Amino acid sequence: MKVIETIADLREARRACAGTVGFVPTMGYLHEGHLELVRRAREECQTVIVSIFVNPTQFGPKEDFTTYPRDTERDLSLLEPMTDIVFMPIPEEMYPDGSSTRVDVQGLTEVLEGASRPGHFRGVATVVTKLFNIVQPDRAYFGEKDAQQLRVIMRMVRDLDMPVEVVPCPTVREPDGLAMSSRNTYLTPDQRRAAVILYKSLMMAGEMWATGEHDVATIKQAMTKLIEAEPLAQIDYISLADPDTLEELAGSHARALVSMAVRFGKTRLIDNRLLS
Amino acid sequence: MKVIETIADLREARRACAGTVGFVPTMGYLHEGHLELVRRAREECQTVIVSIFVNPTQFGPKEDFTTYPRDTERDLSLLEPMTDIVFMPIPEEMYPDGSSTRVDVQGLTEVLEGASRPGHFRGVATVVTKLFNIVQPDRAYFGEKDAQQLRVIMRMVRDLDMPVEVVPCPTVREPDGLAMSSRNTYLTPDQRRAAVILYKSLMMAGEMWATGEHDVATIKQAMTKLIEAEPLAQIDYISLADPDTLEELAGSHARALVSMAVRFGKTRLIDNRLLS
Repeated sequence: MKVIETIADLREARRACAGTVGFVPTMGYLHEGHLELVRRAREECQTVIVSIFVNPTQFGPKEDFTTYPRDTERDLSLLEPMTDIVFMPIPEEMYPDGSSTRVDVQGLTEVLEGASRPGHFRGVATVVTKLFNIVQPDRAYFGEKDAQQLRVIMRMVRDLDMPVEVVPCPTVREPDGLAMSSRNTYLTPDQRRAAVILYKSLMMAGEMWATGEHDVATIKQAMTKLIEAEPLAQIDYISLADPDTLEELAGSHARALVSMAVRFGKTRLIDNRLLS
Repeated sequence: MKVIETIADLREARRACAGTVGFVPTMGYLHEGHLELVRRAREECQTVIVSIFVNPTQFGPKEDFTTYPRDTERDLSLLEPMTDIVFMPIPEEMYPDGSSTRVDVQGLTEVLEGASRPGHFRGVATVVTKLFNIVQPDRAYFGEKDAQQLRVIMRMVRDLDMPVEVVPCPTVREPDGLAMSSRNTYLTPDQRRAAVILYKSLMMAGEMWATGEHDVATIKQAMTKLIEAEPLAQIDYISLADPDTLEELAGSHARALVSMAVRFGKTRLIDNRLLS
């Protein structure tokens, strides 16, 4: 496994790759969710490239960029058995002085996470564009846990005709159902126990849906009531949206993406499930 | 020479290309300026791809998108001797319903042409990104006549790490010095004769510079006086700017990009020259 820190070295290593190249962009502090993406890439591609880059431009000024958890040594040892190249640039390599070009996916990015985190998706779309141009992968693997991010990337790839196939991969969960996230490490033991309420509310929504309740207001109300009963949880948003446009739904529908952001103290967790 | 109208067919043809691919993006109605770009690509690359696409997103609502001159048959016959592939998509192929991603080069695009034509460079940057992703050229050829566009594209390529080399090519001029432009065809015979004033003012600026006059206000004043003496010419702007940042200069400098936009009736012409 090669560990590469500069764009020039990555390009040189990339030119030497034969066959299909699979790419997994990460912000490091890897968990089983990331590793599933890497395993999938390993199964499907001859070369596997993973990036570790905590991208400053996707964090708001009051967000957790400086405290975002990092453990490069552990990350590299987890990747070693199944990765060919790890790309690990410093911020100055990715954003030299005078860097001023941004990629904007309009519409899709103004709701949900985009409404709660202004500029977040502009930062995501821009860094993913850069990474795609540097790595030039045939296939790129993204987790369904970040439902809106996945849709933003797929829309961007389509709109800008990027020569890459985006492969969505199912959310990986802890035994009690909590979606794996690097930010779970912020939780106190009490908050960690309480955080399972996200999963429980999604399960409840799925059961209501399966028994024929397709009215989005009724489902949202039941989820809100369940989560509000957890004293450590503070709802940021609960959404039932059109899975393609992410427009908020009203009335009854055949498909809905239920997604949410909930705070536990200073830690903000997201989760989602497709109802169809 | 293959003429290709869909992205899928272009990708297929591109996969079959061996060696260096040179790309010349155009809006058609080709003149000697375009053909010089194609010749340069022919000299330097094994495969030459030219696009002809009048890009709607770079025209303002009151600009000349619908009347922009088109002559595909003539264009194809001019390209035939030196081009391998012509990519000629219809607008619906490039911008299907729901297309909403845009590329923004901040800073550089807010002055000069960007100030006079809001949204123009967003349209240019977006379509060039798309064309680069579709054609995947090794080298792309742009004329220096569009000085700001050239800088915007080079900045975008650098900022987004696009795997392409941008090759700037000198402006090609009519015998009397008028820069070649598809929009010259709009000019009446009187306007055409008057339009040489752009070149004359650039020559005068160059002579002042060569004789040691490096004060930008003095040069701009002399140019303004010269052009205002031409009754058919109406100045949109005259600029002496930093060649890298395009920030307007004051005082004396070692380098300056002098550029201008001047209207003749409804026709707006641009030209520029580097003083150094």
